[in-house]
Amino acid sequence: MDCKKFVEEQISQIKQTVGDATAINALSGGVDSSLVTVLGHRALGEQFKTVFVDNALMRQGEPQRVVKTFADMGIPVELVDAREEFLSALAGLTDPEEKRQAITDTFYAKVFSRLVRESGAKFLLHGTILTDIEETIAGIKRQHNILAQLGIDPEEAYGYSVLEPLKTLRKDGVREVCEFLKLPAEISQRIPFPGPALATRIVGEVTRERLTTVRAATAIVEEELRDSGAFQYMAVLLSDRATGIRDNKREFGQIIVVRCIESTDARTATATILPWDKLQHICERIISEIDDVNRCLYDLTPKPPATVEYI
Amino acid sequence: MDCKKFVEEQISQIKQTVGDATAINALSGGVDSSLVTVLGHRALGEQFKTVFVDNALMRQGEPQRVVKTFADMGIPVELVDAREEFLSALAGLTDPEEKRQAITDTFYAKVFSRLVRESGAKFLLHGTILTDIEETIAGIKRQHNILAQLGIDPEEAYGYSVLEPLKTLRKDGVREVCEFLKLPAEISQRIPFPGPALATRIVGEVTRERLTTVRAATAIVEEELRDSGAFQYMAVLLSDRATGIRDNKREFGQIIVVRCIESTDARTATATILPWDKLQHICERIISEIDDVNRCLYDLTPKPPATVEYI
Repeated sequence: MDCKKFVEEQISQIKQTVGDATAINALSGGVDSSLVTVLGHRALGEQFKTVFVDNALMRQGEPQRVVKTFADMGIPVELVDAREEFLSALAGLTDPEEKRQAITDTFYAKVFSRLVRESGAKFLLHGTILTDIEETIAGIKRQHNILAQLGIDPEEAYGYSVLEPLKTLRKDGVREVCEFLKLPAEISQRIPFPGPALATRIVGEVTRERLTTVRAATAIVEEELRDSGAFQYMAVLLSDRATGIRDNKREFGQIIVVRCIESTDARTATATILPWDKLQHICERIISEIDDVNRCLYDLTPKPPATVEYI
Repeated sequence: MDCKKFVEEQISQIKQTVGDATAINALSGGVDSSLVTVLGHRALGEQFKTVFVDNALMRQGEPQRVVKTFADMGIPVELVDAREEFLSALAGLTDPEEKRQAITDTFYAKVFSRLVRESGAKFLLHGTILTDIEETIAGIKRQHNILAQLGIDPEEAYGYSVLEPLKTLRKDGVREVCEFLKLPAEISQRIPFPGPALATRIVGEVTRERLTTVRAATAIVEEELRDSGAFQYMAVLLSDRATGIRDNKREFGQIIVVRCIESTDARTATATILPWDKLQHICERIISEIDDVNRCLYDLTPKPPATVEYI
């Protein structure tokens, strides 16, 4: 693939399409939206606005880290604090589909659509890749017409346009372009992380307190398995509790599951065979460093029949 | 320890105390109640009645297997089907303490007290060992005055007596006497199994259907780990469900935890380091042989802070 040619063509096409107007995009920190951010910025400079929405579901220090990574490249990213909106939309929900829907609705119909309107932008840059389009056609992924999701009616919306500069690439192509552009490894080599973020690692209700628990466990698992070479690794907080005993007192504590997988494309996966001393060390840290957790389990299940995430 | 002398003394003392009356005991299949059954039978013959209460919480084939083990030794055991009484007492309960209490109450206050009255026995033989007495004094175990638990008021109960022939022994002494008596290894070497049986391996409500699931998983784990040399091994059914994918369809399946521990006395324990191919094989069997289960997790946690069981 000719990365130089790809970059030049996309920059020139974005410039030409947007003209004197302004454009906006939402950066998630993932590789696709990161590349769109860089291309949009190179094409449009100050006519381009990038927002990072803190939905309360991010990992430890993640919003600040992403903003800083881009600031270091000279790209300003506006950090939008929408934590309360997401937490109140999630309150009381335990059904996985309802939780996912609440996050999608809050992001598109409330937060991002408001940011689009306030920005005055008529162009949206979006990180759709070829696999997204193929999976939508195959019925695996739900249609994600971004304008419809933003609640922008085609009639009313006259003048809004969506640009999808990555729609001819697959994930490996996206990474290749990132490397060509010498983007930091924390962008180009970022391990997969789901859109609904830590909400997919909480079985049961997503609350501020439970996010604190799974966030602390995630930090431990990511720190300990960073050099494992595994495809993906995560911590999951269950809703069940189990008996335990601490300081001679019976307690009823929370349960963290560690999941670490080998995969090439996430369509199938197997549990990573980790060294026992590493597993024991992770368990020891989780039960001693995190309040109210007294069990640590390792997920042995391949995909299928399990999925990678829990909700 | 002089096993011969111990056995002769206990048999003589039981004979002398019971005289021409009749005695009864409840056999759980555990080593303590098994030894009491053998001693009672040798001392009293047909004046002694042993019941095995099927509480619906037993392992696959367990009630029939225990009855047959004793029949093979020439000791008749009456199998009492109390499954409905236990299941209806457990219906709707999810709190661990309430579940344990419901099982205790159903056994003593309902089922066994009825059996005692119907039998006409005035003597109860009970498998209390020295450790039970010590732990009751230390406040670790709740006082288990068997007459009070049977709802037998001391006034009313004039004439009822409890004999505790094992009260000077610890667990190793009980096993030694079993071996001296040449009881089958399935009695003397039985791995620990809790009184509330499979109910301690179900997080959430105990129902007929959920018992079927954890019973099937228990059979797989016990078969696969029988030769592991571990102190104890078990399967636990969680109440949480997790997403999965089977035949290209998204599903929301049940989760089985495998727990296998090293311990000398169950007061502290560590997770057994099992060969990975064994763990993978157990996982494979659990997710393919048991309906509606799509995750298998291995418990890494030592005791403390986790307990051996989950409720």
